[in-house]
Amino acid sequence: MPSETLKILAISGSLRQDSFNSAALKTAADLAGDSAEFTFASLADIPLYDQDLRDKGVPDAVETLQQQVLKADAILFSTPEYNYSVSGVLKNAIDWLSRVDPQPFADKPVAVMSASMSAFGGARAQYDLRRILIYLDAHFVNKPEVMISFAHKKFDDNGALKDEDTRKFIGDLVEALGKWQRRLSAGKPS
Amino acid sequence: MPSETLKILAISGSLRQDSFNSAALKTAADLAGDSAEFTFASLADIPLYDQDLRDKGVPDAVETLQQQVLKADAILFSTPEYNYSVSGVLKNAIDWLSRVDPQPFADKPVAVMSASMSAFGGARAQYDLRRILIYLDAHFVNKPEVMISFAHKKFDDNGALKDEDTRKFIGDLVEALGKWQRRLSAGKPS
Amino acid sequence: MPSETLKILAISGSLRQDSFNSAALKTAADLAGDSAEFTFASLADIPLYDQDLRDKGVPDAVETLQQQVLKADAILFSTPEYNYSVSGVLKNAIDWLSRVDPQPFADKPVAVMSASMSAFGGARAQYDLRRILIYLDAHFVNKPEVMISFAHKKFDDNGALKDEDTRKFIGDLVEALGKWQRRLSAGKPS
Amino acid sequence: MPSETLKILAISGSLRQDSFNSAALKTAADLAGDSAEFTFASLADIPLYDQDLRDKGVPDAVETLQQQVLKADAILFSTPEYNYSVSGVLKNAIDWLSRVDPQPFADKPVAVMSASMSAFGGARAQYDLRRILIYLDAHFVNKPEVMISFAHKKFDDNGALKDEDTRKFIGDLVEALGKWQRRLSAGKPS
Repeated sequence: MPSETLKILAISGSLRQDSFNSAALKTAADLAGDSAEFTFASLADIPLYDQDLRDKGVPDAVETLQQQVLKADAILFSTPEYNYSVSGVLKNAIDWLSRVDPQPFADKPVAVMSASMSAFGGARAQYDLRRILIYLDAHFVNKPEVMISFAHKKFDDNGALKDEDTRKFIGDLVEALGKWQRRLSAGKPS
Repeated sequence: MPSETLKILAISGSLRQDSFNSAALKTAADLAGDSAEFTFASLADIPLYDQDLRDKGVPDAVETLQQQVLKADAILFSTPEYNYSVSGVLKNAIDWLSRVDPQPFADKPVAVMSASMSAFGGARAQYDLRRILIYLDAHFVNKPEVMISFAHKKFDDNGALKDEDTRKFIGDLVEALGKWQRRLSAGKPS
Repeated sequence: MPSETLKILAISGSLRQDSFNSAALKTAADLAGDSAEFTFASLADIPLYDQDLRDKGVPDAVETLQQQVLKADAILFSTPEYNYSVSGVLKNAIDWLSRVDPQPFADKPVAVMSASMSAFGGARAQYDLRRILIYLDAHFVNKPEVMISFAHKKFDDNGALKDEDTRKFIGDLVEALGKWQRRLSAGKPS
Repeated sequence: MPSETLKILAISGSLRQDSFNSAALKTAADLAGDSAEFTFASLADIPLYDQDLRDKGVPDAVETLQQQVLKADAILFSTPEYNYSVSGVLKNAIDWLSRVDPQPFADKPVAVMSASMSAFGGARAQYDLRRILIYLDAHFVNKPEVMISFAHKKFDDNGALKDEDTRKFIGDLVEALGKWQRRLSAGKPS
């Protein structure tokens, strides 16, 4: 693996085994090829956030996620749109990460995409995620904005993305995330 | 209890035992006196939403919450603002309720308040909740908008709300919710 | 005109002569037939909001709009989505109306639709309008949410809406607005 | 003026002569001292956006603003919060700038602050501006978030900002904008 390989942590906002969002992240990894090394986070074991629980320590699943975010050069989210916002599952994980030390999203390059079966592809949810991560000081890629509408028609039963336009958008997003990470990294005062 | 007693379900977005939001809801119940009967929902046992889990059935804690919402005349939320939005805990509960039949928020009168230790009192979170519940067809009270800033200075160690202005705002909100419920109920075509 | 005819004020967020949003409002009037009497507001002569100007009096175009809103039983907006929000033209008009006495949106039943040439049809803009009008105490219809995507393919050169599905959505929205107005009116305490 | 002096274009969302937001921008210029050269944009002569008007050419006031944005190294906005969003005046100016060539906000470092007489200081408006400028590909400073509450108590009758904490926040924001501009500039691939 060449030294400039980008370490990307992929975070899906859906827990479903055959999630379109998880499949979109796998597609991103495939399209990135050797240019990036993907790790796939799991939110399944993150407990509901409760400050009383937090006061007793950081749950293992949260600490694992914190370390994954810290080690990554960049983060790629894919979130479903539930009820016009990000999934509660994803928001809950972020709520935990905002209360650990160090808070791992600080100064981290991030990108977001979304997939849904509707015509809007999550267009209402992504902006909430962008606002949520302002407080945590992440730096979002602006473009392309990848919203995968009618996802059930674009992925096959094995989670392979057949739609060529969408494949191109996802590839462009991964490339944009890499460029953004390199720009922020190169420009950082030493 | 007179027949016109309003049945209000109180839903706190915080699981913490000494939550300011839970305390604000208890204050609302106290201030309502005989005019309303409060039930306090618990989100502590709601699992993370996972469609695979949903496909196996509705978890008990979700069904209990669904029934509580269905039986209530009106819903009063109090949510913390975590990372500029509603808590993941609350969003996750709503995500579940959006996937049960009947979806219990349909045509339900609702109101929201928020409490936080910051100067803004949750001003950024309430509008997300309002947007989220459009899809579920709830009807929000517009005013007053109750945002309890510097909550740690307004509640005592027993969760009693000492600040008179805030007590008045909460009382006004409960009254507005009652009026809104009666208006929507009286105007409903038979 | 029967006494129960609904007086609807139609407000387009676009000034363009051949605006899809203005055409959508005309379609709504056609579909309503005798059940509603439509008035079409014009925002073209509303000056940029400036408190110094306001302090000298209410400009004629603003006062005309204020009176139109006051006299209407219900308001139907159609707004383009410019840069992921409502048009500045529409926001500016609302800013004026929020500073006149009486503020005319108070307790007014309202509905919103949007038309755009993109695939999302304004899905990002409508929620801003809903939030903006909370402060002004308007009461929004929740459903249907009418977002007219690819508007240039659905309207002909004369502004006639050819797409049958969209015609049905608009008709349903006008009907929902009428029902909502009657419910809020009938339920109002005397 | 040293070569590294930052050229900042200051854009106030308020047209009022004694606007707190305009005063906040003047404070920013004072605090920046020699480190930055401020230009103050005027939105007073920007017409209401109308595509028919646009099709006839770019109005002078819009072209002037476009050139000011293009020449600036970075943009500092200060916007009032009207009806829970940015002013229509500011949104209208941005709507124009999104329809000129070249679109001047592309790849531009930007920061936002807000001032209002309320307790929230514009906390609800800034996030709309951040979303609006995603489409135009501007890069926002995350922190500090400067929301000047109770502005009428913090500025004197000459528009001088007396509140020391607020002065520090504004100074920190200008400094953060300068660092962000230098980082994005230094990291840009040649």
